[in-house]
Amino acid sequence: MENYKLFLFTLSSAAVVGILAIIFVLRWVLHFQPGLGWNGGLAEFNWHPVLNVCGFIILQGLAIIVYRLPWSWKRSKLTMKIIHASVNLVAFIFAVVATVAVFDFHHVAKIPDMYSLHSWVGLAALILYCLQLVLGVGLYLMPFTPISWRAAFMPVHVYSGLLIFTSVIAVALMGITEKLIFSLTNPKYKDSPPEAIFVNILGLFLVVFGALILWIATRQSWKRPSEQTLHSLNSNGGDEDGTKVSQLSEGTEAEAFETIRQRNNKCDDQVN
Amino acid sequence: MENYKLFLFTLSSAAVVGILAIIFVLRWVLHFQPGLGWNGGLAEFNWHPVLNVCGFIILQGLAIIVYRLPWSWKRSKLTMKIIHASVNLVAFIFAVVATVAVFDFHHVAKIPDMYSLHSWVGLAALILYCLQLVLGVGLYLMPFTPISWRAAFMPVHVYSGLLIFTSVIAVALMGITEKLIFSLTNPKYKDSPPEAIFVNILGLFLVVFGALILWIATRQSWKRPSEQTLHSLNSNGGDEDGTKVSQLSEGTEAEAFETIRQRNNKCDDQVN
Repeated sequence: MENYKLFLFTLSSAAVVGILAIIFVLRWVLHFQPGLGWNGGLAEFNWHPVLNVCGFIILQGLAIIVYRLPWSWKRSKLTMKIIHASVNLVAFIFAVVATVAVFDFHHVAKIPDMYSLHSWVGLAALILYCLQLVLGVGLYLMPFTPISWRAAFMPVHVYSGLLIFTSVIAVALMGITEKLIFSLTNPKYKDSPPEAIFVNILGLFLVVFGALILWIATRQSWKRPSEQTLHSLNSNGGDEDGTKVSQLSEGTEAEAFETIRQRNNKCDDQVN
Repeated sequence: MENYKLFLFTLSSAAVVGILAIIFVLRWVLHFQPGLGWNGGLAEFNWHPVLNVCGFIILQGLAIIVYRLPWSWKRSKLTMKIIHASVNLVAFIFAVVATVAVFDFHHVAKIPDMYSLHSWVGLAALILYCLQLVLGVGLYLMPFTPISWRAAFMPVHVYSGLLIFTSVIAVALMGITEKLIFSLTNPKYKDSPPEAIFVNILGLFLVVFGALILWIATRQSWKRPSEQTLHSLNSNGGDEDGTKVSQLSEGTEAEAFETIRQRNNKCDDQVN
C-alpha cells in the first residue's frame, strides 16, 4: 500500500512535470518566438521543439509506462500491447513531422542539414525508434511469431526503448542549447535574458520527466503481473479480453494487487 | 558460455570506445585547440572536457561495472566496495578540477557563470554525485550501518548512479555543442570543418560508451552472485576476504559461474 502510494506520487509528479514541459514549450514558441505556422520560416521551425517535446518525449514516456498503470491490469495483455504500439506510433509521427519542419526551414533559410551532434544523434534516435516500432509490432503483435523469439528479444526491446527515450531527451537538451545560442543575440544567452532562463527551466523539466519515467519503468514491484497470475487471481477464471478479471470486487482486487506487489518486491530485493 | 562471450564482447567494445573517446578528447584540445595549461586562458578551459571525459564519464562508467567483472568475484565484497568507491572518488576529483578550470577561465575572460542549461544540469549532476558518494560510503562502507538500511537504499543507490552517469553524458553533449558553436567562427560549425566532424564523432563515442555501460549494468545474468552463493560454491568454506573462493580450480570455477549465470538468466526471463 505504501509502495502503491509512492507509485501514485511518482506518476502524478511525472504527469505534472510533463504537462509543465508542454506548457513551457508552447509558451516559448508563442510568446518568445514568432508562433507556429507552415511557411518555411521560424514559425515552421517552431513545430520542431513543440512536436518533439509533446510527441517524441512526453507521449513516448507515456507509452513506456502504460503497462505499469494498475488500472490497465484489468485489460488483456493484447489490448495493452495495441495501446503501447499506438501511442508509440503517434509519437513517431510527431517526431517525423518535427523533422520535416526543420529540414524545410533549413532549405528555405539555406542552412546546411545534419551538421550538428544534435542532428546526428537525433536522426539516429528517430531511425532506431522506427526500427523498434517495426520489430516490436512484428514480434509482439503478429500472432505467428514464435513465443521463444518474443522472450529472447524482450530484454533488448525493453533496453532499446529506454535507451531511445533517454537519447531523445539528451538530443532535446542539445537542441535547446543550439537554439538559445543562435536566436538570442541582444541580449545574448550568456546575459541570461528571461527567454534563456525560461527555456533552461523547460530543459530541467525534460530531465526530471525522464528521470521519473525511468524510475517507474525500472521498478520490478510495479511491473504488470504475468497473465497467469492475473488469471489465477480471478476465481471465476479469466478470459482473453480480461473482462472477468475486471469483475473482481474492489476489495479483493486491492488485496490481490498488494500480494502481487509484495511478491514482486521480494524479486526487487533479489535483483537490486 | 555464449552469454559469457557476449559479456566479453560488450566489455571489450566499451573499453575500445572509451579509449577512443579519451584519444579523441586529447587530440581535440592538443591538435585543434591551444593545448593544456593552467593560465586562465583557453589552455586551462581545455582541462574541462579532458577531465570530464576521462573522469566523470569513463572512470565513472568503469566504477559502475566493476562488480560485474567475473574476475572480481574472487575478491571479497568489501574489497570490491572499496574499489568501487575509490574509482568514483577519483572520478569526482577529476570532475571538481574540471569545474574549477571552467570557472577560472570564465573569471579571466569575464564570461558569466551558470547561465547555460549545460551548466545547470552539470552542476546538479556534480552535487548529486557528491551526495551519492557520501551516502554510499556512509551506508555501505561504515560497519555500523544497519543491514536493513543498506537493503532499503540499494535500489535508490543503483538508480541514482545510472541516472547521474547518463545525465553527465547528456551534459557533455550539450558542452560539445556549445563549445563548437562558440569556437568555430571561420568556417562555422554549420560549415562542418574537420574539427566539427571530429568532435561530433567524440560525442557519438560518448553515447555508445554510455549505452554499453548501461547494458552491462542492467543485465541480471551478469550480476555478481550473492556472497552466500559464492561461499557455498567454495566447498572448503569461504572466508571474509574471499581468498578461498579464489582457490577454486579454473575448471570448477568456470562451471560454477556458468551455473550462476544460468540461474540468473532464469531471473532475467522472470523480470523482463
